[in-house]
Amino acid sequence: MGKSLKTSEPENSRKMRGLTKWLRGSSATMSRKRTYLDWNATAPLLDCARDAVVSALALPGNASSVHVEGRAARALIDRARDAVARLVGAKAANVTFVSGATEAANMVLTPDFRMGRSSLKVLKLYVSAIEHPAVREGGRFGRADVVTFPVTQNGIVDLDALERLLVAHDAAPGLPMVALMLANNETGILQPVAEVARIVRRAGGILVCDAVQAAGRVAVDMEALDADFLILSAHKLGGPKGAGALISRGEVMMPAPLIRGGGHEKGHRAGTENIAAIAGFGAAAAFHAEGLDARMADLQLKRDRFEAAISEMCPDVIIHGRAGPRIANTSFFSVPGLKSETGQIAFDLEGIALSAGSACSSGKVGESHVLTAMGFDAKTGGLRVSLGTGTTEDDIEAAIAAFGKVLGRLNRQVTAA
Amino acid sequence: MGKSLKTSEPENSRKMRGLTKWLRGSSATMSRKRTYLDWNATAPLLDCARDAVVSALALPGNASSVHVEGRAARALIDRARDAVARLVGAKAANVTFVSGATEAANMVLTPDFRMGRSSLKVLKLYVSAIEHPAVREGGRFGRADVVTFPVTQNGIVDLDALERLLVAHDAAPGLPMVALMLANNETGILQPVAEVARIVRRAGGILVCDAVQAAGRVAVDMEALDADFLILSAHKLGGPKGAGALISRGEVMMPAPLIRGGGHEKGHRAGTENIAAIAGFGAAAAFHAEGLDARMADLQLKRDRFEAAISEMCPDVIIHGRAGPRIANTSFFSVPGLKSETGQIAFDLEGIALSAGSACSSGKVGESHVLTAMGFDAKTGGLRVSLGTGTTEDDIEAAIAAFGKVLGRLNRQVTAA
Repeated sequence: MGKSLKTSEPENSRKMRGLTKWLRGSSATMSRKRTYLDWNATAPLLDCARDAVVSALALPGNASSVHVEGRAARALIDRARDAVARLVGAKAANVTFVSGATEAANMVLTPDFRMGRSSLKVLKLYVSAIEHPAVREGGRFGRADVVTFPVTQNGIVDLDALERLLVAHDAAPGLPMVALMLANNETGILQPVAEVARIVRRAGGILVCDAVQAAGRVAVDMEALDADFLILSAHKLGGPKGAGALISRGEVMMPAPLIRGGGHEKGHRAGTENIAAIAGFGAAAAFHAEGLDARMADLQLKRDRFEAAISEMCPDVIIHGRAGPRIANTSFFSVPGLKSETGQIAFDLEGIALSAGSACSSGKVGESHVLTAMGFDAKTGGLRVSLGTGTTEDDIEAAIAAFGKVLGRLNRQVTAA
Repeated sequence: MGKSLKTSEPENSRKMRGLTKWLRGSSATMSRKRTYLDWNATAPLLDCARDAVVSALALPGNASSVHVEGRAARALIDRARDAVARLVGAKAANVTFVSGATEAANMVLTPDFRMGRSSLKVLKLYVSAIEHPAVREGGRFGRADVVTFPVTQNGIVDLDALERLLVAHDAAPGLPMVALMLANNETGILQPVAEVARIVRRAGGILVCDAVQAAGRVAVDMEALDADFLILSAHKLGGPKGAGALISRGEVMMPAPLIRGGGHEKGHRAGTENIAAIAGFGAAAAFHAEGLDARMADLQLKRDRFEAAISEMCPDVIIHGRAGPRIANTSFFSVPGLKSETGQIAFDLEGIALSAGSACSSGKVGESHVLTAMGFDAKTGGLRVSLGTGTTEDDIEAAIAAFGKVLGRLNRQVTAA
């Protein structure tokens, strides 16, 4: 992990120029057989979730209507609420359905809270340097009130740094809020949320945990994490896009609504419920509540096979977070001399869908803020392979073969130069 | 329209007590054949929209990913954007997809605007008294900065009253914003948006038009309306729940984002795009762009048949907005002595899904703010029958027969008392 990506500049530049040129002039026809290894960007819909969505689409009613059709729609939502709550050990009454995790983040990251009928002020938001942009943007906090705390070179949050910040926080004008993800979306590295909770408790603060990449990949227990709020996304765990949840520990302390209007979701989130997406979310949550360990053990074997193979082919490859606790489906690696943007295109042409960092912003392959936070050369960036329930051994072998080809061309360019 | 709903109090009370008692003790088995006449609450999914949704659900990608799968998802969104723009005579580049109309309202109803790189301040929001709760709540304006302007007894906005308010508005500290719906969700009454636009232009203000109930029911032309922003909802026009749009006249003047994070939707709305819902929205929009007049003429015949029949059975029935311009699918009526809540349950037991006012808040059948604004007895309220493309003549006859039964019981209770 202590390795630097900075190999000699001229060699890297030559490599990049050569590979880029090859990609541009490539007459390689697109591989017909595609291998999808970008489950952290979005997981293909589980069969059970698709069935739930399609069934719900056939219902004519609005869940807020009191007639038979409305009540049928409402019943689906209630069932999904139970399933989502169960997945993370929460109470169904504390699940607020929203349109996705980004909305949930914008809803909960706000200075304006309610404690029953009283208002509760939050002064500052402390976010780790590796949070997803939906959290790092700070929701409804002013930019000046968002403080970033660092991670170590291992990609794990720096507990001492956070503690120092919170000790210095004056809670009289307003509480501190801390936002920390359970699993990083790029590296898969697991964060010590329960330890952070202890620090936050001592400071009398509020802890928000983005469990988007963790849910369905490791067991998530809200009580054990001791977070005040949990953020979930349906489509990252095999549900449909268009549903997410903000889950609270209780019903008393809640953020001021982000979206106001009718009294949906107990007044916490207005707007006609997306019944189909919520039903699919529930089905996916129910799926992951059973047999998770066995599925993850299987994915870990596949992920480890991939990492062993690419390390053998390219001893210089750096696999981020390999030493520490990670979710089993994710491999984030950097190949010296291979820019992530170019690498992603090269793999795409070989039929492999993988990601250069996160897919969080429109078509833009930027530098990885996660690698920067970990002290790596973010310009080169990394490539992320992420697996899911549908990933086969053939998929892994295809990815390994593609790695070999991409590496081969990269090395030939250097040799030829 | 000048009629009062206030028949003698004792008679009404007797009627209600009797009917309520009957409903409670009813051993009537639920009719198996259901007749859905609540299309303004939510329209059943069009076949073309369902197909678009189901096809999109099969795509594995995230529209923000640059690989083949991501680009395929992106292409679906682009196509839908074209279709939605075409439905209202807007440019595709000016369509921002959001999770629904309520979110669109909360996004655009804000004091914080951008004019290119400069900020633009809006001081007050003027909303008509008959706006949907999603608009009446005022989005991100403080409650003190939301001013309500009245409607006349005809249910049409009071232009003089609005003009007086805007003449008195001091634009120096911030612009005025006016929000007016094109068609009211309860009565279906069409509002003179273009006339209001002229008043708003003179005051240098911003006009937001909620076209949720109008789109797909009358031709909507953003240029002719001269609104700065238009709000649409997919599920009201036969698309799926979970998609809506904020449509602007240009790309320069835009509200500060409500949901921040990744750079989706040109930075105006963060969060992984709900590809399936957006694709279904596009399909429904394309459907309504053709053959609208013929479909609406057909629905109007059916609606008028219903109104003629219930007027004959119950000469005291008041049909709101019957005299003026309405969308063709909506009938909002009040029966003296019949509380809307009780009426809705009675119709439901007869197999007819209709609505007591709007379905905007969770299971709560409140008083109609629309009737109150029109000077009627809102306690009694009204019942809304709303039709759609799938409504048959049999559906109308079933509703008329149910009306007869409900009325008969109501009258027998009075006679028996």
